[in-house]
Amino acid sequence: MQTLRPLPQYLVTRYHGWKATAYAENSAWYSRLATDGQRPRGMVISCCDSRVHVTSIFGADSGEFFIHRNIANLVPPYAPDGLQHGTSAAVEYAVQALKVAHLIVMGHTHCGGVAGCHAMCSGRAPELEEKTSFVGRWMDILRPGYDRVKDLPEDQQIPALEREAVLMSIENLMTFPFVRTAVETGQMSLHGLVHDIGQGTLMQAADGGKAWMAV
Amino acid sequence: MQTLRPLPQYLVTRYHGWKATAYAENSAWYSRLATDGQRPRGMVISCCDSRVHVTSIFGADSGEFFIHRNIANLVPPYAPDGLQHGTSAAVEYAVQALKVAHLIVMGHTHCGGVAGCHAMCSGRAPELEEKTSFVGRWMDILRPGYDRVKDLPEDQQIPALEREAVLMSIENLMTFPFVRTAVETGQMSLHGLVHDIGQGTLMQAADGGKAWMAV
Amino acid sequence: MQTLRPLPQYLVTRYHGWKATAYAENSAWYSRLATDGQRPRGMVISCCDSRVHVTSIFGADSGEFFIHRNIANLVPPYAPDGLQHGTSAAVEYAVQALKVAHLIVMGHTHCGGVAGCHAMCSGRAPELEEKTSFVGRWMDILRPGYDRVKDLPEDQQIPALEREAVLMSIENLMTFPFVRTAVETGQMSLHGLVHDIGQGTLMQAADGGKAWMAV
Amino acid sequence: MQTLRPLPQYLVTRYHGWKATAYAENSAWYSRLATDGQRPRGMVISCCDSRVHVTSIFGADSGEFFIHRNIANLVPPYAPDGLQHGTSAAVEYAVQALKVAHLIVMGHTHCGGVAGCHAMCSGRAPELEEKTSFVGRWMDILRPGYDRVKDLPEDQQIPALEREAVLMSIENLMTFPFVRTAVETGQMSLHGLVHDIGQGTLMQAADGGKAWMAV
Repeated sequence: MQTLRPLPQYLVTRYHGWKATAYAENSAWYSRLATDGQRPRGMVISCCDSRVHVTSIFGADSGEFFIHRNIANLVPPYAPDGLQHGTSAAVEYAVQALKVAHLIVMGHTHCGGVAGCHAMCSGRAPELEEKTSFVGRWMDILRPGYDRVKDLPEDQQIPALEREAVLMSIENLMTFPFVRTAVETGQMSLHGLVHDIGQGTLMQAADGGKAWMAV
Repeated sequence: MQTLRPLPQYLVTRYHGWKATAYAENSAWYSRLATDGQRPRGMVISCCDSRVHVTSIFGADSGEFFIHRNIANLVPPYAPDGLQHGTSAAVEYAVQALKVAHLIVMGHTHCGGVAGCHAMCSGRAPELEEKTSFVGRWMDILRPGYDRVKDLPEDQQIPALEREAVLMSIENLMTFPFVRTAVETGQMSLHGLVHDIGQGTLMQAADGGKAWMAV
Repeated sequence: MQTLRPLPQYLVTRYHGWKATAYAENSAWYSRLATDGQRPRGMVISCCDSRVHVTSIFGADSGEFFIHRNIANLVPPYAPDGLQHGTSAAVEYAVQALKVAHLIVMGHTHCGGVAGCHAMCSGRAPELEEKTSFVGRWMDILRPGYDRVKDLPEDQQIPALEREAVLMSIENLMTFPFVRTAVETGQMSLHGLVHDIGQGTLMQAADGGKAWMAV
Repeated sequence: MQTLRPLPQYLVTRYHGWKATAYAENSAWYSRLATDGQRPRGMVISCCDSRVHVTSIFGADSGEFFIHRNIANLVPPYAPDGLQHGTSAAVEYAVQALKVAHLIVMGHTHCGGVAGCHAMCSGRAPELEEKTSFVGRWMDILRPGYDRVKDLPEDQQIPALEREAVLMSIENLMTFPFVRTAVETGQMSLHGLVHDIGQGTLMQAADGGKAWMAV
């Protein structure tokens, strides 16, 4: 396939810098992780957004978090229909194979996916309603969240929808039998967060999702 | 929903440490990114594996990479069937909305998903063949890759399959019309990498995927 | 000596996070402790095990506990033979220089040292019996404890030996004249605990060690 | 043994606070660590001093560090003589059984043990020279360090000796064959630090110990 191109030089240079410093300092631990396997303490589901990096804000190093990133950190409802479900596969692997202790869904402010969902649900983004729109069909997961915020004052709707994205994902996670069992037996705890990427602040869902408190 | 738990204290402490140091040092840039929007230069599709962190090995800071992470860094073929396709949505957003200049698929050694696919295809993991197995059905994407490696000596098959996962994802990406157009008009370049998580080395696909060379 | 390496970056980052938060909030107290000297209320002897942290479970802050950690929280019998005895030195300093009010020996479940001692005493770990085995020779301290548990049902022996490790250490502490004097004059009290690291529970020795009760 | 007393009420209360909060939040992880065993990334040798807590300054949580604490964070030279050597046993366990990736020796300012050694070596602490002084005989390990600092201006000697304590421990560690092998094969890296407990700063040994640089 003639499309493959060499890695841009700026990334080659950065990689070699990492190899000579961080890799060299930690080679013993990285080799160990490769040989012994990963045992991450938690799974994080966060957005693909380039401004959101869970490993940074939680000072996590290699081996600590199993991370699934998709548009708007959404988890669809449990659907064991034999079709391909990437997010469901990631959750299944984390819970059943890795047996993570914590499953964190982290949303964020200024989320393009959430803004797109809001536009779509309020009829201002016909292109997202097309059958062929992958982003539109993915954001369908969040439609019930839109219904919960659409009667709020206009300027509060998108921030509220960013929080609903997290709450919906947590609710949908609980429709997975293996997630429910892991939570009910104390094998795993669920956490919902929203990170304000401009202010650097972090809020967490409390009281069953009815309240949000600063971390 | 009574399942929500407060964030574990060790993560709260680490977050506050980040807020007081990295965030404080860069607040001007982070505020700007929030207000102006993200403009990542590249998209990376990598694995959820806790030992793989693209932002580390490429020294990438906030705003640089739009990152989608799933099991075994796979991209399914283009399927505009109106169903929910998370990976396809992420690619669509990166190419059409963000217009990234580079799309990198990065695989890695010791990949649990690839090992699972190999076991499944060689008949040694009946549980992954069940209709209800999300991991199994997700790894179906890689079945054509297994056919390409199954006649190699036994000990070479899984490493070869880790490379095929990357090549298949690149081939599947090219079945998306908007990806093909972006590549053919020179708006975007595609790159395939495999990272050895124990040795720290990085190989890139060259010559249409027929060769792999050290970065 | 060419062996010294820079501190791994993830620890540098975490340290700076601590400096900017916990240290900054408490700098007045820490400066004071540095200038005035430490005056810990208690000494704790606990295991090196990474899963046992006395400062966590007792919410202890800087300046509260003088902590000696060794394999299996053992204290050897008093032996003023002019040789180097690290544990004895720590106890001597705590009792005579710091005059701590409480001396707590805290054992724990799933103790690798205790399991090693059990294997060694039951003839299943010849490598620990070698003269050159430091772990083996250190665990010799606990041999009398093995004699007390070896007739119990097999599955009760190791948990019983974990408790004996604590009781033996307390008995050995009382062979130190300065410990005996501090206890008999009411200057210091001795306490024996076993922490279940999985369940989070804490048991304390009572009735001269014949009974263990939940804290 | 009538000496055992119930735990002081203030610690009982603190423990129950921990059990209801930190333990409850992390019970899944703690149970997992108990069942699967510890896999700490590093070993730290630090002082018993109540003002030094490695887990705090490095934001480490349960399972991260295997910690040996003794007077003045000293490691004696390798002496496989069949006698009991607690520090040597801790190092042997960390390197051979746990195969830690990093071994950090962390000294600190205002160290009572180091001050005692200085007083002893300069003839101002005859009680520490007695055969029966455990602290004195333990601090004999550092006598060679005193020789290296005794010609410095008086007010620089103790801080210099605090640094020598770390360097000597690292040199002594390298006399252990299994430590030397682990370092030379890249299985483990050695690090030397001195923490200023009043200022909160951290220095690390560089250039084979000839220089100290701020972390």
